Amino acid sequence: MQPKLQVALDNTSLSDAMNAIRDIGQHIDVIEVGTILHVAEGLEPVRCLRALYPEKIILADIKGADAGSLLAKQCFGAGATWMTVICCAEIPTMEGMMQVAKEQGDEKDVQVELYGDWTWDHATAWKKAGLEQVVYHRSRDAQAAGKNWGDADFDKIGKLCDMGFKVTVTGGMTVEDIKLFKAYPIYCFIAGRSIRDAEVPAQAAQNFKAEIAKYWG
Amino acid sequence: MQPKLQVALDNTSLSDAMNAIRDIGQHIDVIEVGTILHVAEGLEPVRCLRALYPEKIILADIKGADAGSLLAKQCFGAGATWMTVICCAEIPTMEGMMQVAKEQGDEKDVQVELYGDWTWDHATAWKKAGLEQVVYHRSRDAQAAGKNWGDADFDKIGKLCDMGFKVTVTGGMTVEDIKLFKAYPIYCFIAGRSIRDAEVPAQAAQNFKAEIAKYWG
Repeated sequence: MQPKLQVALDNTSLSDAMNAIRDIGQHIDVIEVGTILHVAEGLEPVRCLRALYPEKIILADIKGADAGSLLAKQCFGAGATWMTVICCAEIPTMEGMMQVAKEQGDEKDVQVELYGDWTWDHATAWKKAGLEQVVYHRSRDAQAAGKNWGDADFDKIGKLCDMGFKVTVTGGMTVEDIKLFKAYPIYCFIAGRSIRDAEVPAQAAQNFKAEIAKYWG
Repeated sequence: MQPKLQVALDNTSLSDAMNAIRDIGQHIDVIEVGTILHVAEGLEPVRCLRALYPEKIILADIKGADAGSLLAKQCFGAGATWMTVICCAEIPTMEGMMQVAKEQGDEKDVQVELYGDWTWDHATAWKKAGLEQVVYHRSRDAQAAGKNWGDADFDKIGKLCDMGFKVTVTGGMTVEDIKLFKAYPIYCFIAGRSIRDAEVPAQAAQNFKAEIAKYWG
């Protein structure tokens, strides 16, 4: 299956996010309300994006750590298709979210956001708890500190794929980075600034799609 | 020093939070905008509470995991005194928040939210990065799964205090739980539903304060 293309709306206001999505929404598969936008505006961006894009996958990247079922009711109730949980949340928190996802429909899902020193024992526990999606990051701050994609990343991504996870990758992703992942059945690529801040964002989104099609098409 | 009393506003709307804080705001030391309220309403609750309580400590419990300096600018800019970072965030993320805190004034601070399998090596790294506050939890979902306060909790809390951290404790805290911690120099107790949902919330808050004074006064 061809990897999906997701764009993270890490804007600091709803109107900035509307400006960012206008020209690219139709070209991408998953619209992400980034944590930064959630902190700024709560769930209103999810409601607005659901109104504008009734058929798209909308991700609420809240990185929940506790109160799983309550947060899931908030996110899915606002119209999110997917939501995120932070990897250091306890298993009952993840199970609470998954339970609500199941109740609300087949397309609803929860992604585990991989930050810090998670272990393979944790990954096994997530799988056992019914989680199917993980998001593998170079963190924004790690990027700024100069960390690039390397063998340690690819080894982990490969192993997560082998375990049966649907793996999303993200972290300062450029169109040139896409080919680095060609050996893996990536589920979704997330781009942010390299599309939002491009001179012609719609063209940048199409370039990503074309590059993805080149290797997985 | 007598431990502070913090109440978490884990409401799902701004108006519910206003209703919850009205009678108790004057009796408590720290007003927390809970993650649930942030997800619902973004930072507007922080701005409203800062307007209503210009002198109080207001905590933005966003549990940031990435983009530290940007999130810190958002939270402190909205009027928060303290904000939270999730324990599995990378060190540059925490450092980014602390840098902004320092720039914005002496009272600004960042708390590490302890969830999942953090280690003493992590705690040492937080200390080295300049973090002084940690929040020790029984998670809401762990409580629901029947986990109570026990020796393992107290050992960790004691060791965190010994390391020099200002330790906040939370997790379904009742007034009867306060005495369990009397051997430790707790920095702050967080109560939520046991005050917000009490028949007379102002009285419940005063009961917590009196109980704290009994052991640390």
